[in-house]
Amino acid sequence: MNAGNPSAAAPDLFDLRTPALILDLDVLENNLRVMQDRADTLGVRLRPHVKTHKCVEIAERQRSRGASGITVSTLAEARVFTEAGFDDILWAFPLNLSRVAEAAALARRVELGVTVDSLAAVEALEAEDAPFSVWIEIDCGYGRSGVPYDSGLVVEIARRISGADRLALRGCLTHAGHTYSADSPSAVAVVAEEERRAMVEVGRALRAAGIEPGFLSLGSTPGMSRVETLEGIDEARPGNYALYDYMQTRLGSCGVRDCAVTVLATVVSARAGSDEAIADCGALALSKDMGPDDPSHYGRLFRDPGGGELGDCRVTSVSQEHGRLSGRYAVGEKVRVLPNHACLTVAHFDHFEVVRGRCVVDRWKIRRTRD
Amino acid sequence: MNAGNPSAAAPDLFDLRTPALILDLDVLENNLRVMQDRADTLGVRLRPHVKTHKCVEIAERQRSRGASGITVSTLAEARVFTEAGFDDILWAFPLNLSRVAEAAALARRVELGVTVDSLAAVEALEAEDAPFSVWIEIDCGYGRSGVPYDSGLVVEIARRISGADRLALRGCLTHAGHTYSADSPSAVAVVAEEERRAMVEVGRALRAAGIEPGFLSLGSTPGMSRVETLEGIDEARPGNYALYDYMQTRLGSCGVRDCAVTVLATVVSARAGSDEAIADCGALALSKDMGPDDPSHYGRLFRDPGGGELGDCRVTSVSQEHGRLSGRYAVGEKVRVLPNHACLTVAHFDHFEVVRGRCVVDRWKIRRTRD
Repeated sequence: MNAGNPSAAAPDLFDLRTPALILDLDVLENNLRVMQDRADTLGVRLRPHVKTHKCVEIAERQRSRGASGITVSTLAEARVFTEAGFDDILWAFPLNLSRVAEAAALARRVELGVTVDSLAAVEALEAEDAPFSVWIEIDCGYGRSGVPYDSGLVVEIARRISGADRLALRGCLTHAGHTYSADSPSAVAVVAEEERRAMVEVGRALRAAGIEPGFLSLGSTPGMSRVETLEGIDEARPGNYALYDYMQTRLGSCGVRDCAVTVLATVVSARAGSDEAIADCGALALSKDMGPDDPSHYGRLFRDPGGGELGDCRVTSVSQEHGRLSGRYAVGEKVRVLPNHACLTVAHFDHFEVVRGRCVVDRWKIRRTRD
Repeated sequence: MNAGNPSAAAPDLFDLRTPALILDLDVLENNLRVMQDRADTLGVRLRPHVKTHKCVEIAERQRSRGASGITVSTLAEARVFTEAGFDDILWAFPLNLSRVAEAAALARRVELGVTVDSLAAVEALEAEDAPFSVWIEIDCGYGRSGVPYDSGLVVEIARRISGADRLALRGCLTHAGHTYSADSPSAVAVVAEEERRAMVEVGRALRAAGIEPGFLSLGSTPGMSRVETLEGIDEARPGNYALYDYMQTRLGSCGVRDCAVTVLATVVSARAGSDEAIADCGALALSKDMGPDDPSHYGRLFRDPGGGELGDCRVTSVSQEHGRLSGRYAVGEKVRVLPNHACLTVAHFDHFEVVRGRCVVDRWKIRRTRD
């Protein structure tokens, strides 16, 4: 099949076996274009996080639009994208000491950035004979991993890296994950500006200590949708924006029509007169991410399975393969669900069914290996 | 590697790259033996649900101990186990009308049981030229899918199946999933007895209508641990018992030492003096199943990573790859987590790392394809 040339004979998406993960190519391409334009306008390189899609075809489109490299969350992802010809990969997860030898093997083949937030991690890198590009993870207020941006440990770690024979300080990175718990678009903007300032502060502290900080890198999808300036910053690493999801619509990062992935499911059990039914969209299709609504749910249904507009129906509970839908349906009826969290939903499927409108134009592999 | 002959040179589980899914072979084998004995004592055939482990090596052990066939939740699983030489497979999920042709192709190769709870599903089967073994799903009070056990629709569907040229009524099945929300072992026993009585009632109603019901099949892991008699029942289909998990310990189905799978993780970020740390056991290792405790968590840590006894520490939050641990740790330290829900945890890994004690003796593939 040729994504660029859907013919009249292309299969209709409603003929797909379900559960199916539908990727709307027009929406995807628009999302990629808009975010690259936004990075260009803000004056930063874009290094998209591919943990969202785990898909070579999407990463290639990001690269051809101008992405300066990619970000991954696991070494398995790094290996997949190395095999696919990507040669500037940032593993933006604190160094896993059980995988340093493996990382070293990869770092001898491509530019592999590894991330540290401790002296113990730097020591483990020094013990390997490999040309590691090292990034220091900074905590700009999210409180997950990273060195607090105003801690003297940042300079201490940078000095240790700079003093090591085979290590090069490539940059400093942060992720303001707390944009996801902001309660309004303006609150997202405030967090994103704090993220920027923290990184500018880190750059200043390192230069004051006589150390070149390398690239200053930040970014989350909500933050990138709201930040007003990235002055003093070199690089952004949003990931979710390629696909978006229901959570992002609630954060104001996008509209429902910007969401590129949906789950197509089939009603498998429906009782006459009941206001509920069961479809094949359980925890291993949608994930158990309950999203931001109260009462919580596992995904919202489109009014019409053709997509476009959300209705009132929801996936109200899930077991491994069963999803319970609110609303009235007939056995065999197709429904289309907007997932709460695209990244986790994608990780449950083997392929994207790529569509333009209702035509299935391609099938792209999701590289979900964990090894 | 040879599971039966761990040598002194076998790798130590603490040398594994993480996150790793550890399967304790001694515990597994004991679980398989105990459940087969229990089925034998209760006088029913055992048809284990393999959605829990998705692993040919485990299903082969279940078969060699006496299992009369297997149960699957998806057609992808049915195909995997067909390829592996299993020839009596029950697809215990309400028939998905988008996959009938595929099911027909498989039904021509092996004994494939398909499950219906509507006349619409029977009609779809009639339209295919394949020798389907049909099971009627009964709702014994769980309220998910199935025909209510006391509904006249059971006889109507059975009559329709019996009247169709290529269809054979192989049995009636139910799953008392509400054993999982019972608040005590004695409440589990009450639900399990209701499940048994509902199926006996279904058998009686069908025979009264002149229809041979075939096998009467039921079962959940909690129910099988507590039910006192299965008089009048032919078959049980528990699945989780092979591995067990934290949820099952809370339901009283097993003890912590009966849990066969654990997640080995590495602390990747830990601040001096902090009572929390980050490890590589996020949502794509443990799943987002929050389990039965209040406050909720994503898994409990063993006191010692060698296993055996739970401590007070928990995985208090997860993002895609990050898990936040309560407690004090050093970067690089290994921890071992008892997952809330083994079925969903297993579905996130490519392999089981099979151990006896601390020795890694084998590596078994998890067939997690969804296609």
